Amino acid sequence: MEEKDIEELKQEEKELLESAKEAVRNSYNPVTGVLFGAAILTESGKVYTGSNIYHSSTGANLCAERIAAASAFSDGEKKIKALALVSEDGAEGKTFFPCGICRQFLTDVSEISGNDFPVIVKALKAKRVFVTSVLELLPYHYDNSFKIE
Amino acid sequence: MEEKDIEELKQEEKELLESAKEAVRNSYNPVTGVLFGAAILTESGKVYTGSNIYHSSTGANLCAERIAAASAFSDGEKKIKALALVSEDGAEGKTFFPCGICRQFLTDVSEISGNDFPVIVKALKAKRVFVTSVLELLPYHYDNSFKIE
Amino acid sequence: MEEKDIEELKQEEKELLESAKEAVRNSYNPVTGVLFGAAILTESGKVYTGSNIYHSSTGANLCAERIAAASAFSDGEKKIKALALVSEDGAEGKTFFPCGICRQFLTDVSEISGNDFPVIVKALKAKRVFVTSVLELLPYHYDNSFKIE
Amino acid sequence: MEEKDIEELKQEEKELLESAKEAVRNSYNPVTGVLFGAAILTESGKVYTGSNIYHSSTGANLCAERIAAASAFSDGEKKIKALALVSEDGAEGKTFFPCGICRQFLTDVSEISGNDFPVIVKALKAKRVFVTSVLELLPYHYDNSFKIE
Repeated sequence: MEEKDIEELKQEEKELLESAKEAVRNSYNPVTGVLFGAAILTESGKVYTGSNIYHSSTGANLCAERIAAASAFSDGEKKIKALALVSEDGAEGKTFFPCGICRQFLTDVSEISGNDFPVIVKALKAKRVFVTSVLELLPYHYDNSFKIE
Repeated sequence: MEEKDIEELKQEEKELLESAKEAVRNSYNPVTGVLFGAAILTESGKVYTGSNIYHSSTGANLCAERIAAASAFSDGEKKIKALALVSEDGAEGKTFFPCGICRQFLTDVSEISGNDFPVIVKALKAKRVFVTSVLELLPYHYDNSFKIE
Repeated sequence: MEEKDIEELKQEEKELLESAKEAVRNSYNPVTGVLFGAAILTESGKVYTGSNIYHSSTGANLCAERIAAASAFSDGEKKIKALALVSEDGAEGKTFFPCGICRQFLTDVSEISGNDFPVIVKALKAKRVFVTSVLELLPYHYDNSFKIE
Repeated sequence: MEEKDIEELKQEEKELLESAKEAVRNSYNPVTGVLFGAAILTESGKVYTGSNIYHSSTGANLCAERIAAASAFSDGEKKIKALALVSEDGAEGKTFFPCGICRQFLTDVSEISGNDFPVIVKALKAKRVFVTSVLELLPYHYDNSFKIE
């Protein structure tokens, strides 16, 4: 996990964050109130976004990053280059990181994609971003081919 | 639940089924083997597709119809006109209907959309289709504003 | 779905409802506020309870009826006789029925158990109860051996 | 994450592993084949077990550790002292760690319990165990009160 100034990011990463930020607008969450937007960049250069949907369903609610990744896969794009996640700022400017369900799903996505892609996380008003990766977010992750090294 | 010949459907419903069928190609499911594709038609005439992704994650796996609906919402399209779901044929030509998780998620989508939209379900090789609706698929559904009538 | 006066139930059903009602006390739900309790009666006469747990996790939250059934199974009791579900009363005395995720899980439990067991649902202050069954709650349910008849 | 010889564990931890091991017997998983058992020790000295249930439902499947924790909570025991998880050995003796959904659920359990309790993980035939904790398993975990420090 690295903390960076947004200016230190590559141009395509800045643009991906911008797409994630725009996706926050389509978030629907009267339940817990936190709005999220995510954007996936594929190897072919396409961008897929997702906005969280939290309503009555609790257990069936969907987070922004799962939707973005699933949209890419459903469009036949299974090579992922990077994921950006933007959310409203929490209390005292805290940044929200992906939930465990998304991390589990993303390890699958990562395995199918064939790479441990970067995950860039930012609170809406923050000037700094956190850069991590799928496997860093889920150490010793569960999967059927996992081995202790 | 009505069983119909595919020729009895409206033109836009036939086309939606065709989109769902194409989405089957992008399904990823080495776990249970059944491939699904879904397509959502919005009031504005746009079509969003989804393909199921089943890998190591079991509980975090995503079905085609949830992805299609979430993609539409994430694109700001929250008025849904119809959903089509196509899957490989089961043993003896059986048709697979949405799982309970998708039905729960779809009741939320339906409530936000403001209508109990039709759900058209078809096995890949079948000549006949099943036409049902979100609320018919989840009678006495759970939600915070539900009332017995 | 039948609506009955509580006095019309069998003695073991009344007792099961009482166990479910007691389980409401252990519910933890600061998120949406609705408290649930469930109780499973097994063929061998044992009772297992569950109380919903809703916290930050949204998608990982667990409902009372899934916990009760899973507790029975984890204790080696895979023959289920009946399920009772009690919740706080909703607005205007409405009764809450199981969510789609629980219905999906319960169809599996039902298939492993070998019977479509009764599900008795009651709001805490209500005098009347609803008696339904697992398969009635999830018509045309998704499973790998499902066939249209 | 520490790797230890089983003899280095405290007596109560060895016994908890034994309970988890016994719970493997009640696992039901014809889907992916890996059998798990979990055991929760509460502050009051009680032990609650769970066995994973994987059937047709994929997304509604439940893991052993979630069931064990939910059983404790449903019995009013919300102070957790330790969790043990035992599974069948993977290929080349690999050890399976909790999935992301369980980790998310356990961070909630941990927060309600008020402590970051130890998680002891062991493959059935392994002589060595891994000792970690809930928060170590989900770094920068998602929750509504999370703050970067």
